[in-house]
Amino acid sequence: MSSAEVTAAAKPADAPEHCPGTASESAGKASACAGCPNQQICATGPKGPDPSIALVKEKLREVRNKVLVLSGKGGVGKSTVTALLSRAMAQHNPDRNFGVLDIDICGPSQPRVLGVLGEQVHQSGSGWSPVYIEDNLSLMSIGFLLGSPDDAIIWRGPKKNGMIRQFLTEVDWGQLDYLVLDTPPGTSDEHLSAATFLKVTDGRWGAVLVTTPQEVALLDVRKEITFCKKMAIPVVGVVENMSVFVCPKCATESDIFPAKTGGAERMCADMEVRYLGKLPLDPRLAKCCDEGKDFLAEHAGSPTVTALKGIVARVQEFFETDRLTCTCVKRVLT
Amino acid sequence: MSSAEVTAAAKPADAPEHCPGTASESAGKASACAGCPNQQICATGPKGPDPSIALVKEKLREVRNKVLVLSGKGGVGKSTVTALLSRAMAQHNPDRNFGVLDIDICGPSQPRVLGVLGEQVHQSGSGWSPVYIEDNLSLMSIGFLLGSPDDAIIWRGPKKNGMIRQFLTEVDWGQLDYLVLDTPPGTSDEHLSAATFLKVTDGRWGAVLVTTPQEVALLDVRKEITFCKKMAIPVVGVVENMSVFVCPKCATESDIFPAKTGGAERMCADMEVRYLGKLPLDPRLAKCCDEGKDFLAEHAGSPTVTALKGIVARVQEFFETDRLTCTCVKRVLT
Repeated sequence: MSSAEVTAAAKPADAPEHCPGTASESAGKASACAGCPNQQICATGPKGPDPSIALVKEKLREVRNKVLVLSGKGGVGKSTVTALLSRAMAQHNPDRNFGVLDIDICGPSQPRVLGVLGEQVHQSGSGWSPVYIEDNLSLMSIGFLLGSPDDAIIWRGPKKNGMIRQFLTEVDWGQLDYLVLDTPPGTSDEHLSAATFLKVTDGRWGAVLVTTPQEVALLDVRKEITFCKKMAIPVVGVVENMSVFVCPKCATESDIFPAKTGGAERMCADMEVRYLGKLPLDPRLAKCCDEGKDFLAEHAGSPTVTALKGIVARVQEFFETDRLTCTCVKRVLT
Repeated sequence: MSSAEVTAAAKPADAPEHCPGTASESAGKASACAGCPNQQICATGPKGPDPSIALVKEKLREVRNKVLVLSGKGGVGKSTVTALLSRAMAQHNPDRNFGVLDIDICGPSQPRVLGVLGEQVHQSGSGWSPVYIEDNLSLMSIGFLLGSPDDAIIWRGPKKNGMIRQFLTEVDWGQLDYLVLDTPPGTSDEHLSAATFLKVTDGRWGAVLVTTPQEVALLDVRKEITFCKKMAIPVVGVVENMSVFVCPKCATESDIFPAKTGGAERMCADMEVRYLGKLPLDPRLAKCCDEGKDFLAEHAGSPTVTALKGIVARVQEFFETDRLTCTCVKRVLT
């Protein structure tokens, strides 16, 4: 296999030399299409740019900043970081509005983590109303649409993409300062769809990458950075989660996932992305997530909350400072 | 939304009443198809059963048992359990052959965990040769096909499915007692494809589910069990990973991910699946995985290895005892 990479660009990686582009009116019908393995798909598929892209742009016109929370590996704490980040921003800025969109279609965990499991979304004239966790913090997740929390969503890619499109076009978010998107691990359908839609919206967007210090997770976050570069997604930076475990009895700090090559900070320097900070492993945090409690309120003085404040400040700096954003975007695009 | 579930069955969930089935010769052309949203796809798509299904059946004729390692949530230790299980079985049965197939297309970690990162697969007359870790343990992974370990596989579902089909039809596994498949988290393309193919093969197959004791992971493993029931995948049982952390200084046992509702054992009783045992969280295990070392050889006397032996025995019991298999399969199918 010469190249294991394809992007969502207009021309597939295996396209013939004079491919007119899959969105072209002559897709599948040009002379260059003869013999192309995609000819039939192109000839029968819908033509022109996806009409829902314009709809997403219009619908998210009042959403200033979009934060995509990504990780290569699962279980590194994307959902926890999404919830902590959103809650912290909402609490520090009571006069501004925040939203969380859970696009982990096959494993939605935000309803549980944010403590609104079992709530219902309501349909209004202007679309689905998200569920409100605080006055200025709302959430939309497929978890609200399931009959039972044990129900499995057994969907292949196209159905998941359709759901994400619906979330971005049919949810009545109102005016938001930040919309934080929680994603499944990897670099596949959900990520391509979200990036394709967010790319066209007004305002700023960027990805916060989450990892643990262990090699296997760092390897995967490198792939995720490569993905961001290929898709021209601005990288806000990397959060290192579950770095150390502090024994509750003797206060000995143990590396749960020992870092061999300098951990996330070193990897960030290598890959030229910003290191946003580290969060310690705190069993009370896992417990709060399981019970849907607000960790920030319950353990206000903990080292995790202190570390989180620094991370939140750096994320907001990215979105709200002109100079910094430009540097990061340039770095990513080159 | 009335039903959030679709399966890979011949008729889509939203099919009209007299749908001839998507694999039928008259798909998209019968009178019942008029007005169906899938009509165009059916009318232009390939007809009849997927020809590669017969090919997979033929190719895996000499593979006696197929173990699908699944989890709802990421980061609970699927890859670690896959590697430990395969290594342990291969070491205890030096006269039998074992294989590992990594179908986590977007985040392949087996080459690193099994210590063969950077190896190459070779093409021979009878197909791709897998990479040998031991004389009786071989591995195939997309990780071997990448130019650089940082490369991202940015593929939507259909390309991932094509790759899995290739792995099952074009790899020269030879005679194997067990083929262990490591999967990405969730219930989507990779799982549907693997299940569809393995279902038709001779010999036995079944799923080992991996979870941590925390609520969020248990919630997702329940979804995974629902998935297995819907797809008629026999459930071997559930492994509970990272249950406790033993402080290396004072030996205090801490629950890293505190269980609120009795953990995996209780969940297994509720869902009527077998509890295979628990593995403690051992930082030395994470280190071995990162470095691709054989944990079983390096820390032969550790509690993890003792626990693992029990789990391996119960997995082999499922595949090699007649009575037990029948009970489990019946349980799952009803």
